[in-house]
Amino acid sequence: MSAAACIFCKIIRGEIPSFKLLETEKVFAFLDINPLSRGHALLIPKTHGEKLHDIPDAELSELLPAAKKLALAVGAPEYNILQNNGRGAHQIVGHVHVHMIPKPNPKEGLGIEWPAQDTDMDKLKALFEELKAKI
Amino acid sequence: MSAAACIFCKIIRGEIPSFKLLETEKVFAFLDINPLSRGHALLIPKTHGEKLHDIPDAELSELLPAAKKLALAVGAPEYNILQNNGRGAHQIVGHVHVHMIPKPNPKEGLGIEWPAQDTDMDKLKALFEELKAKI
Repeated sequence: MSAAACIFCKIIRGEIPSFKLLETEKVFAFLDINPLSRGHALLIPKTHGEKLHDIPDAELSELLPAAKKLALAVGAPEYNILQNNGRGAHQIVGHVHVHMIPKPNPKEGLGIEWPAQDTDMDKLKALFEELKAKI
Repeated sequence: MSAAACIFCKIIRGEIPSFKLLETEKVFAFLDINPLSRGHALLIPKTHGEKLHDIPDAELSELLPAAKKLALAVGAPEYNILQNNGRGAHQIVGHVHVHMIPKPNPKEGLGIEWPAQDTDMDKLKALFEELKAKI
């Protein structure tokens, strides 16, 4: 999707209203209007890009410090930070966004399923060697 | 928990072995040994702290650019970035960690439940005013 048609780019440009909590040269944050819990907010880079790896480091670097600011303002003792990449990974809007989702109780906030795989040290070591060569 | 007893601080200090993928002055990344999917990795700040808001901005700012590096090395087209704060929010180890979890198919990787609440513009506006005064 182009930046012209992107709903989050429209929010950044003020063409769609939002409950803007924070704006810097590089990032923009606002309340999610379909929250999972009270204080659920979104933080986005101003550069249009679909996935984390499409965004310049200088913008990525501001997102977690900004999320920290929001978490402190909301005052939630427990919360999840989530950023989804791709339809299969639960991403709906095609512009990178970081969720800050307070977890006030088991029923509200993010629900997590954790299908952990067994540890296979041989497979992990092979993967490790492969990745090390690419980093 | 103190830094002396923390399992992730021990990994940083090399007292416990790990499949270390990346290390800078401020952050450390390694393979999760109980992965949800192939390439599941953890990124941690070197400063010991339980929750995101306990960590200095200078360390937080390096975590997402490092996650991007790992995502590119793994080459996963879809993935989730997750950072949990508090037992109720699914945090197990009490040292801030960012998960980079490839999502290769619906069965592997992170499972997400999304109990969205109805939009209530009056409540959102009141919350917005409250938060704006604190940011």
